Amino acid sequence: MAVNLPAPDHKSLHPVAGVTLGVAEANIKKPNRKDLLVIGLASNARVAGVFTQNRFCAAPVIVCRKHLASGTPMRALVVNTGNANAGTGDDGMRRALQTCDTLSKLLSCAPEQILPFSTGVIMEPLPVERIAAGLPHCVADLRADGWGDAAQAIMTTDTVAKAASRQIKIGGKTVTVTGIAKGAGMIHPNMATMLGFVATDAAVEPQVLQSLLGYAADRSFNRITVDGDTSTNDSFMLIATGRSGAPEIASAIGDAYALLRDAVTEVAADLSRSIVRDGEGATKFITIQVEQGLSVEECRKVAYAIAHSPLVKTAFFASDPNLGRILAAVGYAGIADLDVSGVNLYLGDVLVARDGGRAPAYREEDGQRVMKQSEITVRVELGRGAAAATVWTCDFSYDYVKINADYRT
Amino acid sequence: MAVNLPAPDHKSLHPVAGVTLGVAEANIKKPNRKDLLVIGLASNARVAGVFTQNRFCAAPVIVCRKHLASGTPMRALVVNTGNANAGTGDDGMRRALQTCDTLSKLLSCAPEQILPFSTGVIMEPLPVERIAAGLPHCVADLRADGWGDAAQAIMTTDTVAKAASRQIKIGGKTVTVTGIAKGAGMIHPNMATMLGFVATDAAVEPQVLQSLLGYAADRSFNRITVDGDTSTNDSFMLIATGRSGAPEIASAIGDAYALLRDAVTEVAADLSRSIVRDGEGATKFITIQVEQGLSVEECRKVAYAIAHSPLVKTAFFASDPNLGRILAAVGYAGIADLDVSGVNLYLGDVLVARDGGRAPAYREEDGQRVMKQSEITVRVELGRGAAAATVWTCDFSYDYVKINADYRT
Repeated sequence: MAVNLPAPDHKSLHPVAGVTLGVAEANIKKPNRKDLLVIGLASNARVAGVFTQNRFCAAPVIVCRKHLASGTPMRALVVNTGNANAGTGDDGMRRALQTCDTLSKLLSCAPEQILPFSTGVIMEPLPVERIAAGLPHCVADLRADGWGDAAQAIMTTDTVAKAASRQIKIGGKTVTVTGIAKGAGMIHPNMATMLGFVATDAAVEPQVLQSLLGYAADRSFNRITVDGDTSTNDSFMLIATGRSGAPEIASAIGDAYALLRDAVTEVAADLSRSIVRDGEGATKFITIQVEQGLSVEECRKVAYAIAHSPLVKTAFFASDPNLGRILAAVGYAGIADLDVSGVNLYLGDVLVARDGGRAPAYREEDGQRVMKQSEITVRVELGRGAAAATVWTCDFSYDYVKINADYRT
Repeated sequence: MAVNLPAPDHKSLHPVAGVTLGVAEANIKKPNRKDLLVIGLASNARVAGVFTQNRFCAAPVIVCRKHLASGTPMRALVVNTGNANAGTGDDGMRRALQTCDTLSKLLSCAPEQILPFSTGVIMEPLPVERIAAGLPHCVADLRADGWGDAAQAIMTTDTVAKAASRQIKIGGKTVTVTGIAKGAGMIHPNMATMLGFVATDAAVEPQVLQSLLGYAADRSFNRITVDGDTSTNDSFMLIATGRSGAPEIASAIGDAYALLRDAVTEVAADLSRSIVRDGEGATKFITIQVEQGLSVEECRKVAYAIAHSPLVKTAFFASDPNLGRILAAVGYAGIADLDVSGVNLYLGDVLVARDGGRAPAYREEDGQRVMKQSEITVRVELGRGAAAATVWTCDFSYDYVKINADYRT
């Protein structure tokens, strides 16, 4: 069902020196599927993270923030699917810590050196016994070439595993960036869990790593979600092991930083586009570009208003050029002083609306032609300034309702 | 398909002295359906209106605002379905004014004394010739008992006509309040057109009428839509003809005002609930009550976050007590300092979550029992203050996608 998204070729996923991955079938929600992942880190690996802004953030998110703030080097990440451990109160915190405790004993480290992640159904108790029983299998399975299996182990309603990998040269050394993600698996990714784990063997100073993470997130995962409107568990982690032999990147200025930043951003953007392509029930991949705004923020507002409109999304599903729905979304996006007579709308290469009204030369069949494509770009010119923003989304189909109505059954 | 919404009994709709209604089949979009309505007003009737906040507001909305601002007494309202005359630029303005011009000649009044309304597809030219051809039939059909036919003539994807009527006594005289509405006909009513027309034969001073309208709108149509996030054409009009013989209500203080205010609010709330019951594809009517907030505004934010979540809505459709989705919506509603450990969640009479986590006594079968009902109340206690807000919404079904994917075909 995913839109132009082949499964990753395991051989294309370059191992990252200092990172090993091991999976298990722990029967967390359903039998006979990989549902537990441990990512082992060499000593002195550095980890930066960004997390959901949801006030009902899940217990593992709270634990991750606490462990990262402690300054202790992390030794492993543990990810379970099938249960989000969110909306579970103090009991949920105990269970998240218990998972860290169990894994830390297996790895002979402190519980504070473990970062836990959960995704799945909300408000159900995390089955810690099953996780504890699965962890030794994960640890026994730890290997450098485990990225492909790891991508599979974190899937929930994803239909295709999501992974990406790049190599660059820094200071004459080959530096690898490899990552995996699981999808929101839904039309409004902001309301479900996205997990992204990207690792590099570059050496990066911790504050620079955090700033690089923010840069990449703004151009990838934050393009498919609304700030402050995120799920209980969303997490995007960036690991730098320093094992490539390339010199440490100690500042955000210079070529080495730019090279690494772009490689990480490409991997993250690739993963986040994969999430949209595999959106629940998606049949089309839509790029929404809003240009000529006064600020990036207002361009994003407009892009999200279009991307979230069920009317726009069902029109894409039906290949129906009912494009007034897009104009309506522009109008209610919240730009109070928008002069609509300056607004132009393009669908692919077709000028649909000019100066706020239907373009005289626009013909229904031209709109229809673009709407039938599986990849569609909507471009809005606001006629106010020079800022721009892009958001990726998908259409809204019968299958979205079917998948979400049946999710727990 | 509408949830517990019988068609109105025409005999229950009391005529309003000074108001006549006439309809026609004008073939605006489809043949053989009533699609054009004229509401004739006796001289000196007063009209107040509230309109969409959408920057792409439709041409007729702009014309209505201008005509109302002129201070001239209105003599008629004209409503067409099948075409919204929105996103149509200057040409749309000309066509809206042309409609007023044609009707004013038939009624021997000035064009500024006509208020035009349109609903239907966006960004298509309004077929003014067909409207002009239909208007004489509407005028010939004008009659005091035309409310039932009028309710039918303004339907678009509505499956049931929407009308309500009340009578009260003011100063010993019987005062009537009768109204009609057409639905958004969709799950997010904020993104489609709602039209509401309520008339009374009470005499009300113009500023008092406008304030009464605002009061009623906040407790009816604004409970099913998001401020600033409305369609291109939304309009709610309140007409007071002064023909009941009851003394004029010249201030917003006193029993007569309170009586009329409550009757108008009841009619408007009845109409707006009907819109939700007839939401596109709706199978359930959901009342969302948010309590113990610091302000009404934050309670509304939370209520709308729940009401707009496709995940929550599909869970209602499936009768699946996947109630963590409601907690997640509370968490991302935008209350930055929300302490989730103070949040309780009830589904009907069942306590689902207490102090931010699953309630110890909550059993899945209790949630299941409530989810199977056709009318469900969700109650959230925020544990922060004494403010409250209620929003009405419906579930999200296969038929929503079907209706909106097929809308123009």
